[in-house]
Amino acid sequence: MKYCATCGAPVELRLPQDDHRERHICTVCNTIHYQNPKIIAGAIPEWADGRILLCRRAIEPRKGFWTLPAGFMENGETTTQAAARETLEEANARIDVLGLYAMYNLPYIDQVQLLFRAKLLDLDFSPGVESLEVELFGEDEIPWDTLAFRPIRYTLEHFFDDRRRGNFIFRNTDIEPPAPR
Amino acid sequence: MKYCATCGAPVELRLPQDDHRERHICTVCNTIHYQNPKIIAGAIPEWADGRILLCRRAIEPRKGFWTLPAGFMENGETTTQAAARETLEEANARIDVLGLYAMYNLPYIDQVQLLFRAKLLDLDFSPGVESLEVELFGEDEIPWDTLAFRPIRYTLEHFFDDRRRGNFIFRNTDIEPPAPR
Repeated sequence: MKYCATCGAPVELRLPQDDHRERHICTVCNTIHYQNPKIIAGAIPEWADGRILLCRRAIEPRKGFWTLPAGFMENGETTTQAAARETLEEANARIDVLGLYAMYNLPYIDQVQLLFRAKLLDLDFSPGVESLEVELFGEDEIPWDTLAFRPIRYTLEHFFDDRRRGNFIFRNTDIEPPAPR
Repeated sequence: MKYCATCGAPVELRLPQDDHRERHICTVCNTIHYQNPKIIAGAIPEWADGRILLCRRAIEPRKGFWTLPAGFMENGETTTQAAARETLEEANARIDVLGLYAMYNLPYIDQVQLLFRAKLLDLDFSPGVESLEVELFGEDEIPWDTLAFRPIRYTLEHFFDDRRRGNFIFRNTDIEPPAPR
């Protein structure tokens, strides 16, 4: 951030009174521009036979890899609505959103990811513009080697374990930065 | 938002390609400026005798009313760290953060509030700059008529109910806009 979104003048980094970290502050109108983490909301859409809906990404990052439908939460919606909207956009699929299943903290990219269990309502799904393919996978069919992101892997691993035990346990997990390649 | 934070030129509201809602887009450098909900993280600090730590607000909104320690999550931290930091800032109190207890969706102000159960580690607390008083309250001492926000009331009501039953149940709750006064 270099310029004030309110008046267009340059901003500078400095510590506001009674604050504990530097902020971008306008040199003319003194507006303080806070920057905060963003929420990714997504779903684990489960069909009646237990298979899970995954999307193969048509966009970077991780183009060509498989993921659960998820994306940036928008202003004016709830976390549940965001998970359902992302599933509709990425997979043209309708779901009933059930309980919150996992929360991932990714402080190194300023994100909190929220994954909800969900009931897939029909089989009339197809790739949205951000997906190459959309497909149902049984537990023994999950493309473990071509999953897009670590939280997707963790979520699916725990989901199948918990489902087998008949007890879904919410997990709040901190994710470390990826090792350099 | 009127000006581009990247180059200082005017922005205009229009629909990016493949997007579903209008964004602020720079008329010169074409940067798309997304705006997303913010996370409020907070704690329910419980002392060994079962009393809960509340803060009386020194700032608007709801100055003079009682609340749980909570505030805007910062970039570079986890939700758990945010809840502990806010408790330290507002009450100079040290806690161990336990499980996520409640999530509130407030789409009319673009917020998601996350409240964690927490163990208050010592009695060496005092008001931070945003608090007038900090005090421990037993269930029969909670200032129900002067609580600052509805999510605080709901959280405390459920917390005491759940504690009595010996079973803390996570709740994901949508909050409607307040009725006009």
